[in-house]
Amino acid sequence: MSAVFAGPDHAQLVINKTQAPKDLLPTDQLKFGASFTDHILSVAWDSTHGWGIPKLEPYKALSLDPAAAVFHYAFCCFEGMKAYKDAKGNVRLFRPEKNIRRLNTSAQRIALPAFDEAEVLKLLAKFTEIESRWIPEGRGFALYIRPTLIGTEPDLSVSRPQSALLYIIASPVGNYFGTSGMKAISLEAISTPVRAWPGGVGDKKVGGNYAPTIVAAEQSHARGFQQVLWLLGDPKVPEQQYITEVGTMNLFVAWIDHESNTKELVTAPLDGTILPGITRDSVLELAQERLVPQGWRVTEKRVYMTEIKEAAEQGRLLEVFGAGTALIVNPIRSISWNGQVIHCGLKKDQEVGDITSSMKDWIEDIQYGETEHAWSVVV
Amino acid sequence: MSAVFAGPDHAQLVINKTQAPKDLLPTDQLKFGASFTDHILSVAWDSTHGWGIPKLEPYKALSLDPAAAVFHYAFCCFEGMKAYKDAKGNVRLFRPEKNIRRLNTSAQRIALPAFDEAEVLKLLAKFTEIESRWIPEGRGFALYIRPTLIGTEPDLSVSRPQSALLYIIASPVGNYFGTSGMKAISLEAISTPVRAWPGGVGDKKVGGNYAPTIVAAEQSHARGFQQVLWLLGDPKVPEQQYITEVGTMNLFVAWIDHESNTKELVTAPLDGTILPGITRDSVLELAQERLVPQGWRVTEKRVYMTEIKEAAEQGRLLEVFGAGTALIVNPIRSISWNGQVIHCGLKKDQEVGDITSSMKDWIEDIQYGETEHAWSVVV
Repeated sequence: MSAVFAGPDHAQLVINKTQAPKDLLPTDQLKFGASFTDHILSVAWDSTHGWGIPKLEPYKALSLDPAAAVFHYAFCCFEGMKAYKDAKGNVRLFRPEKNIRRLNTSAQRIALPAFDEAEVLKLLAKFTEIESRWIPEGRGFALYIRPTLIGTEPDLSVSRPQSALLYIIASPVGNYFGTSGMKAISLEAISTPVRAWPGGVGDKKVGGNYAPTIVAAEQSHARGFQQVLWLLGDPKVPEQQYITEVGTMNLFVAWIDHESNTKELVTAPLDGTILPGITRDSVLELAQERLVPQGWRVTEKRVYMTEIKEAAEQGRLLEVFGAGTALIVNPIRSISWNGQVIHCGLKKDQEVGDITSSMKDWIEDIQYGETEHAWSVVV
Repeated sequence: MSAVFAGPDHAQLVINKTQAPKDLLPTDQLKFGASFTDHILSVAWDSTHGWGIPKLEPYKALSLDPAAAVFHYAFCCFEGMKAYKDAKGNVRLFRPEKNIRRLNTSAQRIALPAFDEAEVLKLLAKFTEIESRWIPEGRGFALYIRPTLIGTEPDLSVSRPQSALLYIIASPVGNYFGTSGMKAISLEAISTPVRAWPGGVGDKKVGGNYAPTIVAAEQSHARGFQQVLWLLGDPKVPEQQYITEVGTMNLFVAWIDHESNTKELVTAPLDGTILPGITRDSVLELAQERLVPQGWRVTEKRVYMTEIKEAAEQGRLLEVFGAGTALIVNPIRSISWNGQVIHCGLKKDQEVGDITSSMKDWIEDIQYGETEHAWSVVV
């Protein structure tokens, strides 16, 4: 392992547990990312000493110089992942090595320090174990874990930060859909503003991808849509517009391919403009394993809005869903685009299609340990 | 004035000066953005109460929740501006209302709170006045001022931060070129990665524009170039590649236009992909006022690399320079592009061309109050 990737060392972890553990919130009061567990795990890095001693401490504010790089030049990247409690009380993570790998990739893209992934995985597991009382029981509930890496050097020159901080915090999250089951949402597909661009950072989980999306999402919401479907392609030429991501999810379209008359599950390719979602990858792998034997095709390719529209008009559009850590899958009722509303295959009183529903069950079964699978790691 | 733009109120400023003023650094030890003055001026905002009471306090660390929006989603924007000491000892700002206007525009693009620009200008002037002992005397020296606005709400939902902090810090800066005069630099023009794109945030001074540029700049530096010239256009089609910015400066090209045989100063248009530089604007205005009467044309238009190359080959390329707050203008010796080196009009032992040199003098004369001009504001 090269020097750059050495450390931190999980064996050096210093544990200083809180003397005043907080009360757990009732599970019906859990709001995503709004309340946090008892501790923070953090490890500092600087260019002279490399990674320092990891510390687990009571959750507390960070103290940073007002000139710290993160405040000025967005030296920040993160991950979002969940810990689950299975029926036997085991604590499980879902493909955590993928999140840690992606964090390392994001970090290096924005000149933040690389780290030894196996070591950070062990720190993550230890943090999760110590915070396990915060994992609400029951399907749909989880502890959302947020590894974060920021540049801390107080220096306004636009250059590689010579100090950084990696930290892990966590927030218990409820069953987003409550007891009522899934709810299909309506999207607005827009080509301006643009979320990401070839040669940009759309495939990295860096902070700079997020703040610029808020105003457009609010405006879309005010027009009655739940999420934005981000398109790429000339805003003046609808025929050139193709899908990238929806909100903070990847998008999947199930249709009957017009050439082969075959059922096909399609999603945008990893061309640098979309996040390489871990749920996306899981959906693709499960589809290969379980849908292909049923006669489905599974395809990563550029999907144009005109193709979706045409499939809907010709009755070939079966279902559409978003895929991400927050909801696993989110069924989509309609997409508003170019002055038209594209109905995505659901009947009026139907909230979720068969493929979307199966995907949710398959992935949840793994996450909650009901199907034994290598993706689910007991900590 | 709408409610959104109300506040902060400069008249409420609470001043708590340091009891331990720092020693000034010798001017030859000043490094851009590395040392800071005695105080920080800050004012908090939240969605319930709006802008709070502005405070001037001893320079100190910020204490922020690890879930604060700025650490995760890059809710951060800033300005860079300078205060100068003129020969009479007056303190001067250069077009400060332009910076404050741009900060407001940047803030609103990334869902941070808007503010009353006249009030923030007054706070800025007061801060500058209190820190005036930090402004080094002499041409080329200045106090670099960094107004910054960050989202502080501890909430991981990707949404508008409900709390924010506006703050001003400052760093004394030396004469970048020392006593040796200007130094021409060599650029590498690259089309991948891409700094900004249509529909993005390239025209806003938001943090997310900066972190993704570091690795490319380092790689370019390792190949022997001082700065990156960021291009837009298909990386595979050199003929389609056009200039946007250089490093963190706008780019100006002086050439003889091949159609009209007229001397022309051209720069990229404000099409959303480049920062609307205040130095850029000043260069354009001064060129209109002082070069046009000498027979020059001044043009904002898309400039293709093939045009620059052709002008160089035909002996029509007069000079090229970057323009920005840090250096005012920075002469450019050569641009490496598409496997070729384009020589930008300077002779071998020449570090700066006439237009570049005149622009520097004209703008500095105004900044240091040697030419009386409405752009220079005595505080």
